[in-house]
Amino acid sequence: MDALEICYMSAGQLSGLIKSKEISPVEVIDAHLARIEATEPVLNSFITLLPDEARATARRAEADIQAGKYRGPLHGIPVGLKDLFNTAGVRTTSGSKIFDNFIPTEDCTVAIKFREAGSILLGKLNMHQFAYGPTGENPDYGHMHNPWDPELVTGGSSGGSGSATVAGQCTITTGSDTGGSVRIPAALCGIVGLKPTYGLVSRFGLTPLSWSLDHPGPMVRTVEDAALAMNVMAGHDPKDVASAKVDVPDYTTALTGDVRGLRIGVPEEYFDAPLDPQVGQAVRDALDLLESMGAVVKPVSFPMFKDAFPISTAILMAEASAYHRDLLTKDAEQLYPPIRLRLEAGLFISSADYLRAQQARTLFDRQARQLLEDVDLLAGPTEPVTAPQLLATRVQAGETSMGTTPALTQYTRPYNITGMPAISIPCGFSEAGLPYALQLAGRPFDELTVLRAAHAYEQATDWHKRRPPI
Amino acid sequence: MDALEICYMSAGQLSGLIKSKEISPVEVIDAHLARIEATEPVLNSFITLLPDEARATARRAEADIQAGKYRGPLHGIPVGLKDLFNTAGVRTTSGSKIFDNFIPTEDCTVAIKFREAGSILLGKLNMHQFAYGPTGENPDYGHMHNPWDPELVTGGSSGGSGSATVAGQCTITTGSDTGGSVRIPAALCGIVGLKPTYGLVSRFGLTPLSWSLDHPGPMVRTVEDAALAMNVMAGHDPKDVASAKVDVPDYTTALTGDVRGLRIGVPEEYFDAPLDPQVGQAVRDALDLLESMGAVVKPVSFPMFKDAFPISTAILMAEASAYHRDLLTKDAEQLYPPIRLRLEAGLFISSADYLRAQQARTLFDRQARQLLEDVDLLAGPTEPVTAPQLLATRVQAGETSMGTTPALTQYTRPYNITGMPAISIPCGFSEAGLPYALQLAGRPFDELTVLRAAHAYEQATDWHKRRPPI
Repeated sequence: MDALEICYMSAGQLSGLIKSKEISPVEVIDAHLARIEATEPVLNSFITLLPDEARATARRAEADIQAGKYRGPLHGIPVGLKDLFNTAGVRTTSGSKIFDNFIPTEDCTVAIKFREAGSILLGKLNMHQFAYGPTGENPDYGHMHNPWDPELVTGGSSGGSGSATVAGQCTITTGSDTGGSVRIPAALCGIVGLKPTYGLVSRFGLTPLSWSLDHPGPMVRTVEDAALAMNVMAGHDPKDVASAKVDVPDYTTALTGDVRGLRIGVPEEYFDAPLDPQVGQAVRDALDLLESMGAVVKPVSFPMFKDAFPISTAILMAEASAYHRDLLTKDAEQLYPPIRLRLEAGLFISSADYLRAQQARTLFDRQARQLLEDVDLLAGPTEPVTAPQLLATRVQAGETSMGTTPALTQYTRPYNITGMPAISIPCGFSEAGLPYALQLAGRPFDELTVLRAAHAYEQATDWHKRRPPI
Repeated sequence: MDALEICYMSAGQLSGLIKSKEISPVEVIDAHLARIEATEPVLNSFITLLPDEARATARRAEADIQAGKYRGPLHGIPVGLKDLFNTAGVRTTSGSKIFDNFIPTEDCTVAIKFREAGSILLGKLNMHQFAYGPTGENPDYGHMHNPWDPELVTGGSSGGSGSATVAGQCTITTGSDTGGSVRIPAALCGIVGLKPTYGLVSRFGLTPLSWSLDHPGPMVRTVEDAALAMNVMAGHDPKDVASAKVDVPDYTTALTGDVRGLRIGVPEEYFDAPLDPQVGQAVRDALDLLESMGAVVKPVSFPMFKDAFPISTAILMAEASAYHRDLLTKDAEQLYPPIRLRLEAGLFISSADYLRAQQARTLFDRQARQLLEDVDLLAGPTEPVTAPQLLATRVQAGETSMGTTPALTQYTRPYNITGMPAISIPCGFSEAGLPYALQLAGRPFDELTVLRAAHAYEQATDWHKRRPPI
């Protein structure tokens, strides 16, 4: 089988061939390692690559499967973890040279779950330092580069996860999403990124950015793979104080292709905000398609949408600075200056401001929940623009020139504030060949409806089949 | 029946006579109004007295009961509410002249519950301004005075509730407890004060001091009355975001008198802290009595006890200043200077400090919960000293001279941090005739065990029968 075709198979496709022994995990891993070798000089997706360990695990998987011990759909599937997911015996840098020699003694819960499912860890993925930025800069381990155009950002903070997934370096990757860090690189790289409900996926063993906003989630090339990954990642974990005690369904039951009667609300405010008109049109087209498939698409009003930025900024900066305060005392000189600046500024946020922001968050959440009493999903763009130039501090969003961070997080922050599940899926390409993305958000713990709509749209389009030129 | 005897009957006693029509609610209210008239010039327990309204309600209660419409054990019972419990049509000052003309349009949930139970509101009780202090000073409405010695504080912030209850002005009063404001005046006035589990009694319609530490609770003269009051006050309220969804038992089922096999842990650190040795001895004697009744009393270690003050102070000051910030902008000149100072200082607590305190709180809570895996209750003094002089800024606790606020809140703050139920009951008197108090704390939502032990101890002693000299 052609090695590149293996790299572009979904976990859903690969698992069928692995289970039936038509392909061996060793072959799968070798194909991916070759793909990494060919593309990594341009992309720089990995901070730590584990070729020997991955090959050894693949041989064990092959032997187990030959012996009839097939573990399930992720057995033998190549996985990459963002480098803030602790891995026992494998250094975990959080994207900073300060932790260049930090080797955890304990796996994070997500790593344990992937291992127990039989998946194979290819390496630890590059990221914005401490997950504190939406682009994919990293002076310590090198910037990440967008496979559609290496001059452009991958989006961040889970930028290596975005580039590795769309370039066929990994089948499944993980990200963490505090203001959009799963969905932004998913959108700018043209893949599927799911931020699950707050508390549904354990954060044990992950470096926090802002603990009341942090959500780990899967980054994959198909909605089916998001469901397969969630079947492994989701579930209560007593080691995470915010972990929810809820029943976890089989997420693949969402993949019906049927959206008839599904009510999709489109906040009008999303289209009044700074927005590239071509991105806006692509999203409108996607909603028209869903409507033609039987969904009920209607405008709704979300007046507090404009307050997402100040609410999320105050909470995120305060919590990040509280967590990283010791770092500022001991290692300030080694921090990337823009991140040092943000961490230092966060120390000046008063508790009164923080608590006011948390109070405003309650009102914001209430408004979003009220909207979701009348509709099943909220839809709109994931990003107002396509991928910006690397290190660009400003972008042009329609008629508005604005800061890159506020632009890239404009549509993603609301669902960190509310903790609701939100997915980004590709919904077209610009003339320059850059992906557009649709965001769908649902009620807390209603991942099934989010996945159902995303999957139905995906199956009706070919966007997820397009490959970057690298 | 002698009017003073009526005023010193418990709700449990009165209700039997009211139900059997041996006494009328009108007679009960008249007796209490006469007692208030006689004692109020010295005590100053009330900010707003409602004699006409109370008499009118008493007449309706009398008519209802005559007509066979007896509502239950609180029907016709005289109640006073701390003046931060909103009462529709009756001004609610929170102890400050700034709100001298504030007349709520809506009752707080606790007021509704007492009204529906048929109890009769005698008035609104004096308090430390905005509940922000443990003594019972109030320059705007006059200081509160301890019925055992009017030169001494009642304890605060629910000082009027303490003095009104022990002096027979009300049968049942309410307080709110953020760092000890129910248990401190209960201890210094020699009555029973219960701080229920966080979220068990609705805070809707109460002026917050620190929303993550605030607990409304009953202040009464017998443990049976605490159970009767909790039967009315407890329960889920959708109007309070922190209200717990738990089943509420009949609290009078706790009144068995039987403590055999009950495991009572005594943190050794409580006796290493500054403590008047005579208070300590009274508490030891109380624990010996419980042991002789069949309880298993054993020392335990609670190393984080010493951290209660900084944790609780940072959270309390930050939340109080966030809530009252507008007041500082508009009405700073009208604030009592020590409270203004504390509110202004709170604005300088950084979000990082606040969040660190919340993190330490998690560890503190975990330690307390671990202790309560091996024992059923934690016991110790409520206060390290008897009631201090009015306006004294320092007290002598054993060999230690210390600030009045840290002294009076030393043993009470831990259970605001953890949200666990804690009761204060009288356990003796000093040579000067001032009450000592025992504190018993239990597992979250295990008020039954707390009440059971308190009631058994009370029934084996006569302390609750002693009356102040006023």
